[in-house]
Amino acid sequence: MSAPAATALTAQPALLTVRWSDGTVGEFASIWLRDNLPEDRDPHSGQRLIDVADLPSNPRIGSASLQGDCASIRWQDEPRTSTLPLAWLYEFAAGRRDRPELQRRIWLDGATLSAQRDFAWLAWAQLQADEAARLSWQTRLLQDGLAFLRDVPRVDGAILEAMNLVGQVAETNYGRLFDVRAVEQPENLAFSDRGLGLHLDNPYREPVPGFQALHTLLAAPDGGDSLFADGFALATHLRETAPAAFDLLARTPVPFRYQGTGADLYAERPLIELSCTGEIAAVAYNNRSIQPLRLPAGDCAAYYAAYRRFAELLREPRFQLATRLENGDLALFDNQRVLHGRSGYASARHARHLQGCYVTRDSVYSKTALLRQRRQGRAP
Amino acid sequence: MSAPAATALTAQPALLTVRWSDGTVGEFASIWLRDNLPEDRDPHSGQRLIDVADLPSNPRIGSASLQGDCASIRWQDEPRTSTLPLAWLYEFAAGRRDRPELQRRIWLDGATLSAQRDFAWLAWAQLQADEAARLSWQTRLLQDGLAFLRDVPRVDGAILEAMNLVGQVAETNYGRLFDVRAVEQPENLAFSDRGLGLHLDNPYREPVPGFQALHTLLAAPDGGDSLFADGFALATHLRETAPAAFDLLARTPVPFRYQGTGADLYAERPLIELSCTGEIAAVAYNNRSIQPLRLPAGDCAAYYAAYRRFAELLREPRFQLATRLENGDLALFDNQRVLHGRSGYASARHARHLQGCYVTRDSVYSKTALLRQRRQGRAP
Repeated sequence: MSAPAATALTAQPALLTVRWSDGTVGEFASIWLRDNLPEDRDPHSGQRLIDVADLPSNPRIGSASLQGDCASIRWQDEPRTSTLPLAWLYEFAAGRRDRPELQRRIWLDGATLSAQRDFAWLAWAQLQADEAARLSWQTRLLQDGLAFLRDVPRVDGAILEAMNLVGQVAETNYGRLFDVRAVEQPENLAFSDRGLGLHLDNPYREPVPGFQALHTLLAAPDGGDSLFADGFALATHLRETAPAAFDLLARTPVPFRYQGTGADLYAERPLIELSCTGEIAAVAYNNRSIQPLRLPAGDCAAYYAAYRRFAELLREPRFQLATRLENGDLALFDNQRVLHGRSGYASARHARHLQGCYVTRDSVYSKTALLRQRRQGRAP
Repeated sequence: MSAPAATALTAQPALLTVRWSDGTVGEFASIWLRDNLPEDRDPHSGQRLIDVADLPSNPRIGSASLQGDCASIRWQDEPRTSTLPLAWLYEFAAGRRDRPELQRRIWLDGATLSAQRDFAWLAWAQLQADEAARLSWQTRLLQDGLAFLRDVPRVDGAILEAMNLVGQVAETNYGRLFDVRAVEQPENLAFSDRGLGLHLDNPYREPVPGFQALHTLLAAPDGGDSLFADGFALATHLRETAPAAFDLLARTPVPFRYQGTGADLYAERPLIELSCTGEIAAVAYNNRSIQPLRLPAGDCAAYYAAYRRFAELLREPRFQLATRLENGDLALFDNQRVLHGRSGYASARHARHLQGCYVTRDSVYSKTALLRQRRQGRAP
């Protein structure tokens, strides 16, 4: 990215101040500068060669000056002069982040939205051949938490071919893909013809699957419609309208378990997970696999009231995006953010067959970044 | 598990109290009981058929009585009588958890320990054929965060065969396994002959690999020794000796990145990650992939002081378990807890060749639980 011209440098022992022609002012702590000198990076891999414990604990700037497109820094206590590219410093000063996919767009009132109109769609042929369209689609997938493919060949395993273009398929004890259709005596009620309330998959797993794909090989002629809701929007709504309930849900671990042939999976996590700075980082909700809460009897009334309030939000029709996936459609969604469910259908009268798989979180972001770099001519 | 006899039941509208002959007293909130009725579970899969929003918000117990090995509950506002097994209630009342692998044992003074003497070892033949030994070994692996195999065949991919018995191998952009040996111009300095300070692998990944295995195909005759330290013990030590530094590390996200052929991986996470109840849940430390911190200049001095303090702990010899992995040895460790490193070696004089892979966290716990159930005759 280009940066405007730097116009002035001011050095104090612990602080470098840089002014740019667009009015941006950057303040850089001496220890931060000392930690990020280009000469302490491996020229080939770009990896840092030093450890913070290798640095002087209190590096003092002696003087600094503009030298072409770099800032030149003389240190008081070391016989070295360091140069840092001004365009690189500008990125930090301006808070620039060339990652539009990190700009999350939450959507609360799902019922006012149309899957066809308001979310990103990409046809199978474009997925294969049109990198610009794929970059745009992946960016919106990551922003909205949900996007769709159409015309995915209705053959066994086509979902894996599709997902290997978007990210990396995560293998679990279910294998690389799983079939969703009604069977007798299912080990998991997903494999029945029951309606399923909004949920996220596999909260009993560690790690929880990052993304989930569901490919419609055969739609039921009626019933089996899909529901989606943005769990981050719902959690944000709860935080605004019932902060005490939100805090309880975020602070209380909930046990989840799945027992089946060849697996006994158990994990504890809160229904709403916060990042280390208090931002909503994940939601986990699956009424089928929640185990008995390990709470003192005296804490149950308050926790259950909060838990019920969240569950009731999930049932409010205004928050639900309802859509019907036709043959060849594929829904891909963030499985720690976007809840999914379905209406029931009559399996005795009609078959219905979906294939599903999970995709690792980082791989989707990685492929998006690589696509963008390739479009920008910055990568092969 | 067997339970002593229940001797008395006392019912109030919102609380059932049960006394057992060993003195255990269990208090169960009415909403908790109502949420956990056996009749609301699918008899085949065991999955819960109801949602918390289906429950009465304030279920009141009318009366309760001992009925053989069950507690029988009449509800005030519903025409139903429910029965709950007393042995099942006892497990909650007594806080029983039949999962010894969850009893973590942290070890701070690694230098006083011997890998051979103080950690679990299992020979290849036992891994294949001795389920009792395998259960014991896996349990200690999960308790200590580190365990070893010996006599693993020195052939390409034997590590995968071994790890498929212990858990499930996680495929990444590196593939299912990676080779650790010195190459020219490595994309990752792990693939050089440099010494590597204590670190955890791939903090730039989401999810971070749960476990890491390293199999010695060819040890260097000198150098290339292995170091390990228990990050949970170090973080606990920091929390006790420098609580403000600990809090800063736990509350500040750090950017990590890896750019290589076919991958651009980026994640932000704190160096010390806490669970929703404030317990140490993960550590992330890798000086090679830490990116410039996005901190206001005024916050740098305090953060860097805490960061340095943690980095200095990692360098203290007293905390480091040093060992030498011989040909055929395999180290398996929790990659979000146990840091690993190596001394440098002279690749020009001696080859050294390890193969590594990652194993998903849940799969190791799942296989451990299944092994235990099989030993106890509770699973096929």
